Amino acid sequence: MTETITDKKEIVVGIDIGGTNTVFGIVDLNNNILFENTFKTYPAKGAEDFFGRLACIIKESYNKLPDKYILSGIGLAAPGANYLKGTIESSVNLKWENVNIIKMMKKHFDIPIAILNDADAAALGEHVLGVAQNMKNFIVLTLGTGLGSGIFVDEHLMRGENGLAGELGHIIIEEGGRECTCGRSGCLETYVSANGIKRTVSYFLSVSGLKSELKNISFNELTSKNVYELALINDPVALEVFIYTGKILGKALANVVTVFNPEAIILFGGIADSNELLLKPTNFYFEKNLLNFYKGKVRILKSGLQNGKAAVYGACEFAKQLMTKKMINV
Amino acid sequence: MTETITDKKEIVVGIDIGGTNTVFGIVDLNNNILFENTFKTYPAKGAEDFFGRLACIIKESYNKLPDKYILSGIGLAAPGANYLKGTIESSVNLKWENVNIIKMMKKHFDIPIAILNDADAAALGEHVLGVAQNMKNFIVLTLGTGLGSGIFVDEHLMRGENGLAGELGHIIIEEGGRECTCGRSGCLETYVSANGIKRTVSYFLSVSGLKSELKNISFNELTSKNVYELALINDPVALEVFIYTGKILGKALANVVTVFNPEAIILFGGIADSNELLLKPTNFYFEKNLLNFYKGKVRILKSGLQNGKAAVYGACEFAKQLMTKKMINV
Repeated sequence: MTETITDKKEIVVGIDIGGTNTVFGIVDLNNNILFENTFKTYPAKGAEDFFGRLACIIKESYNKLPDKYILSGIGLAAPGANYLKGTIESSVNLKWENVNIIKMMKKHFDIPIAILNDADAAALGEHVLGVAQNMKNFIVLTLGTGLGSGIFVDEHLMRGENGLAGELGHIIIEEGGRECTCGRSGCLETYVSANGIKRTVSYFLSVSGLKSELKNISFNELTSKNVYELALINDPVALEVFIYTGKILGKALANVVTVFNPEAIILFGGIADSNELLLKPTNFYFEKNLLNFYKGKVRILKSGLQNGKAAVYGACEFAKQLMTKKMINV
Repeated sequence: MTETITDKKEIVVGIDIGGTNTVFGIVDLNNNILFENTFKTYPAKGAEDFFGRLACIIKESYNKLPDKYILSGIGLAAPGANYLKGTIESSVNLKWENVNIIKMMKKHFDIPIAILNDADAAALGEHVLGVAQNMKNFIVLTLGTGLGSGIFVDEHLMRGENGLAGELGHIIIEEGGRECTCGRSGCLETYVSANGIKRTVSYFLSVSGLKSELKNISFNELTSKNVYELALINDPVALEVFIYTGKILGKALANVVTVFNPEAIILFGGIADSNELLLKPTNFYFEKNLLNFYKGKVRILKSGLQNGKAAVYGACEFAKQLMTKKMINV
């Protein structure tokens, strides 16, 4: 008897396209991880270049797997992705305007392809496999190059009229504040994100006379990881930067709770890994600014998924939903 | 053959309990209005007094109707009402802490009684009978003594973990701003509401040297209607007050759009009736502060229901849903 397609074990690939790195994973339908990898996004090289490289890397990785597997679906998570249209519409960090991801991927793969916002993917991942498994109302903040958010309202991933709901990174928290890539000023993302942290370093180097190792690193060389490592060895400016960031984040999250009445807020991504350095001031200013009813009731949690793979798993989940439920996004 | 209950035509009463006035209406199951009335809430006299008066007024009104009708359900809309518990939990304008409305009404009526937040009721009313009849994503702001909001997300009235989602009146828009009845400072409601308008009058009388009829009216005597009427005859301070209020409202609504991606925002209640005086500056600062993607796409509308009865109709609708769907709120 010859082997048929039904003897094969279906697998899906989930991809989280970040402004700096792209992470992807291959899982079977029971969420067993078969392969994981990371490569540089290099968004400035353009979308065509990126999706060409991505297709090669997926095919290479797939070919390394045993012959019993068959790739049946792809889920792509990207900032500014619009699941209704299959496009990246307004990604200020990738700067790929109106790129139709589905079309680009269909050049390389003739299987169902699902796309969704990276933060929505993270929320879906946390709901399926992470700390939000039994939660009906929760918010996932992705703290990477920018700040994204995915929001579950009454057991439902919030979408909005154009699939763009939940852009907490672009709520204006300071009138006339820092210039934002969106063309306005004072957006939360300009303060609370890897890039926001770098700007806050510059701010403290301007206003404070404290000694700091940060004075030896140029803006472009600096990463939020540098700031974290210096804070761990008590660099005074690095410590101030985390308190300042946590204060802004805590106050903003208190407003977010007033709006959404969630059970928890989950932090995901690079600077969320700064642990107590960010969480402690965030929690302090969060509790201080909450409506009385909520004080002590709403938890701020870190992503429950190893290596911050929530968006990758969420993208896999969305691909599986597309394959089984015949969703419109094909 | 004797008349049975099935020969009777079922009707429901919907009640919108405001900080100043209580409005109620009796409708049949096809939303034909049979009776409407308004009376003073006098919240300071306490909840027991209020619900006693309310029961009398409902019974009187019902008795005036032809014998063919039978009262089958009651829907109550109140600020701070929690539909999950049947209580008023956090109404800063009624100041009835933890009042169990269902129990109070059950003393007088042995029929299904539904309660919901007044702003949620307004949103439901607009969805069933008003300008939001075909909308999936919209926000209703109730501009009365306070500022409430009811939010439809993806065709679903947003509830949240404790039934308290959507309290846009208590998002903090100005750090260290005006003291709020919630115990914090700078809440949107302290600027954009009937009471907020009075406080803004005082603010302009403090900073401006302009002549104004408003200098002849004490804070306690003043109503937002006074300010409106004076603005119509070009009182310079009254005009400034509307521009100031619209600026704050417009900027806040731009952030709200970033969060919810709605099709429209609907203004409902007393100061929403100030027409162009409020709408013009609101629209200007709204468009100015929107993310580029949304500019020119999101409408700010006035309630489509005559005499601002959205919450009354919404309460009726909720009572009908309770009667037919056997919801938990009995």
